[in-house]
Amino acid sequence: MLFSTIQKLLNLNLHGGSWFKLVQQRHLTTQYDFVVIGGSPGGLAAAKEASSLGAKVALLDYKPPEPIDIERGVGGVNITANFVSKNLMHQAALLRDSLNDAKWYGWKLGDRIDHSWECLRHAIQNHIQSQEKISQLELVNKQVECINGMATFKNPSTLHFVTYRGEHDITARYFLIAVGTKPLYVDIFGASEYGITSDEIFSLLRPPGRTMVIGAGHTGMECAGVLNGLGYETTVMVKSIALRNFDQQMAGIVRSEMQNQGVQFLDKCIPKNIKKSSNGRYVVSWTNIANEVFKKEYDTVVSAVGRRAVTKELRIDKAGVVTSDSRGRISTVNEQTNVPHIFAVGDILYNKPAVTPVATLAGTLLARRLFGSSDIQMDYENVPTILLTPLEYGFIGLTEEKALSLYDENKIEIYHSYYKPTEFFIPKRSINNCYLKVIALREDDQQVLGMHYIGPKAGEILQGFSTAIKCNLTIKTLMDTVGIHPTLAEEFTRLNVTKRSGKDPKPASCCS
Amino acid sequence: MLFSTIQKLLNLNLHGGSWFKLVQQRHLTTQYDFVVIGGSPGGLAAAKEASSLGAKVALLDYKPPEPIDIERGVGGVNITANFVSKNLMHQAALLRDSLNDAKWYGWKLGDRIDHSWECLRHAIQNHIQSQEKISQLELVNKQVECINGMATFKNPSTLHFVTYRGEHDITARYFLIAVGTKPLYVDIFGASEYGITSDEIFSLLRPPGRTMVIGAGHTGMECAGVLNGLGYETTVMVKSIALRNFDQQMAGIVRSEMQNQGVQFLDKCIPKNIKKSSNGRYVVSWTNIANEVFKKEYDTVVSAVGRRAVTKELRIDKAGVVTSDSRGRISTVNEQTNVPHIFAVGDILYNKPAVTPVATLAGTLLARRLFGSSDIQMDYENVPTILLTPLEYGFIGLTEEKALSLYDENKIEIYHSYYKPTEFFIPKRSINNCYLKVIALREDDQQVLGMHYIGPKAGEILQGFSTAIKCNLTIKTLMDTVGIHPTLAEEFTRLNVTKRSGKDPKPASCCS
Repeated sequence: MLFSTIQKLLNLNLHGGSWFKLVQQRHLTTQYDFVVIGGSPGGLAAAKEASSLGAKVALLDYKPPEPIDIERGVGGVNITANFVSKNLMHQAALLRDSLNDAKWYGWKLGDRIDHSWECLRHAIQNHIQSQEKISQLELVNKQVECINGMATFKNPSTLHFVTYRGEHDITARYFLIAVGTKPLYVDIFGASEYGITSDEIFSLLRPPGRTMVIGAGHTGMECAGVLNGLGYETTVMVKSIALRNFDQQMAGIVRSEMQNQGVQFLDKCIPKNIKKSSNGRYVVSWTNIANEVFKKEYDTVVSAVGRRAVTKELRIDKAGVVTSDSRGRISTVNEQTNVPHIFAVGDILYNKPAVTPVATLAGTLLARRLFGSSDIQMDYENVPTILLTPLEYGFIGLTEEKALSLYDENKIEIYHSYYKPTEFFIPKRSINNCYLKVIALREDDQQVLGMHYIGPKAGEILQGFSTAIKCNLTIKTLMDTVGIHPTLAEEFTRLNVTKRSGKDPKPASCCS
Repeated sequence: MLFSTIQKLLNLNLHGGSWFKLVQQRHLTTQYDFVVIGGSPGGLAAAKEASSLGAKVALLDYKPPEPIDIERGVGGVNITANFVSKNLMHQAALLRDSLNDAKWYGWKLGDRIDHSWECLRHAIQNHIQSQEKISQLELVNKQVECINGMATFKNPSTLHFVTYRGEHDITARYFLIAVGTKPLYVDIFGASEYGITSDEIFSLLRPPGRTMVIGAGHTGMECAGVLNGLGYETTVMVKSIALRNFDQQMAGIVRSEMQNQGVQFLDKCIPKNIKKSSNGRYVVSWTNIANEVFKKEYDTVVSAVGRRAVTKELRIDKAGVVTSDSRGRISTVNEQTNVPHIFAVGDILYNKPAVTPVATLAGTLLARRLFGSSDIQMDYENVPTILLTPLEYGFIGLTEEKALSLYDENKIEIYHSYYKPTEFFIPKRSINNCYLKVIALREDDQQVLGMHYIGPKAGEILQGFSTAIKCNLTIKTLMDTVGIHPTLAEEFTRLNVTKRSGKDPKPASCCS
């Protein structure tokens, strides 16, 4: 994936290009200090950092021929691109709210506002291409050798890979597995034939139309929320419970707002099959809890049922690296696998937060430990999580359920409040979902264990607080902090109602 | 001001109303625990908190007949309302950017987008009225006695006030001066006759049209920036230097962006007079540094040359309270004036940050110390400052100039970076002003002394970091924090270029 982009962008001739030839010649005759397998964010960060520190680095990444499926209208994009796409689609959905707001603030727009999927998709793809170009140039500037090849371990110290030129072996002092994950299809007839996954929805060549999202985890809910926000009729099929691993009170608010905005939920339903209708649409069949069978036509059916690490293809078994679950994820201690010279980063790690900045930071810190004088380890605790549906929910640290499982109820204090964003008043936006809570220890200055926020700008608001939690934030300090008025973030400094008190957490006024 | 609103809203009959009569009877015969003079945010907060803690509290506030000046098109609003107006006008200006963005994200709007000042002003005034209603009801609920009267001190323990019913004296165990400030007119002919102040610009009954803002401090720059953002031709007259008390590098970026957006600056110019032209507009005359005289017609001329505390009118001299500058401001230690039972909060304090949440928190904490068991003092250090032009600039702690005046240059490390907001790419917004810097001590883990940020959502982003600074944030912790991707706030966690290094602070890619 990476190399093919370099090649296109730098106008290199693949078959006779001097740059590529040079790289190939060199990696055939050289042992590397560090071989990074996979162009995921963690891999890229580690490769660049290691090379900056003087290590001889190769980055292996394989881009298969793009599986353009006109039938389903899917263009191939990589995982990072999909992440970017999702965030930009979210931005587009938020702008719809801004357009509605603008009228109330005196801006005169037309009566009818339409949206062009094609225009948005095109803009996003252009952006992604330019980002890839920059990313590639960085690798070149940092003298990371990029190899477009399908790699497999031959033994713990040898990696075998295939390029169009043939087969090669390389060895390295350290290997880093950064191959990432790929989405699973729901295991029913037609899911892969007629449906797509959450990685593909945001690069669909045609508007998604009426869409069924199968799965109500983080990804499924984001897909559904954003599509609905752009004006597409969207249904989520929920097997057991939506957002199972989230704080359930907050998850309930998110789900309820999605329903208010028009997303339909099919609860406790099991998909049966997907068939193609004579009109070109897809007919999904499912059963409910009473085992009744339902059928409905959709334009797009999205599997959002989780991901698996792409570690099997790498034959990590031949390297002696063991996996810890059925989805190919690897347990690590400070990014080290059970094989001491083989490391791993990113969403392939077992029981670690699967978000880009964690992978990036872990990769960078690992490179500094391996090739610099650093001894700083990655801290996987208190990593913020953000959900965009497009209502934003963010949290750091413990959920209420987790806190109550770890501590006696009498040891925990939960502060909570509804709030009224100043900018919501004029456009008369609903404030029903503007809610936050902080979970703290009850003793002494009340150390903060978890912060939860639903409302606009969740990521921006929580970043600083996540830093404060790393500095051992307490409720006392939070309450002593001067608010920035008028902001949403200041609501954290104004919390004063505990759940224990039973008092109404509704705010009286924006200035009270 | 407060009482007149209560009276309107609760439909009390002023001349025979039982509620008002009750209050009047009681305050004529009762000594109070706490008399708060002035309905400023700090006064309101202190009054409510003290009453909640069981104190007998009166709040005196005087609303003069509204000076509607049709000639200048000014409606009277109070200071809090003006603050709210400014922020909502800022919101309206930001929405213009959102409308531009939306087209790039696929939303189909009309070709021409106009703005209605009248519509916006009306929406804002409605909002303010509803907020005042809520605020009044809170006072009533908290059993604070509200008196609409003009108060003056007779002696240190007696306050004299005048209502439409006559003159009264009251005494109290503690007094709190919370009278706030009012804006000054520039001291030239015509300024008060034909011009308005920054308190009135956002409630103008007519669109401001071509506007001259005299003064380039915080308020003048905000007025000019927001008016320009709403589409009005705006000029700022600068006597010496714009944003003198701000970090000058950051101030330069703000000013430069205002110029890019169309605000004109008249540097080192002195206004001479304002006259009325035969066509109804106002002719401003001024001289430049070479003493050349210029004249130009404007629709609106705004004095933004500072404020003075409304303490003289209160005859604080009779109470023995001394002021510390020519603008009537009072020095306090933990809100206590030189007269032990008389306290003061808000923007009337000498050498303290004049922002609403500081006043609110100081008032609340004072009430808790006076009437509760608290010993928590207000911390006036590291209060965040936000400037909205509508480009947002926020900072906490030291400016670069201040840091270098307090510490040897070798003791200070300054980290800085430009950054590229993901959401700016598609609408191709300029990223020239997206810049942040952190000032830290150089030794050990590098304690953070100041954080500066220019770009969208400055207040939301800085709130959490201001909490972190209260928890003794260091550069080490900042760099160990996992970013929330993609946000603007995460750029603080990615800083790695120091000014000392001379390296280019431009970012290579959004994911590097």
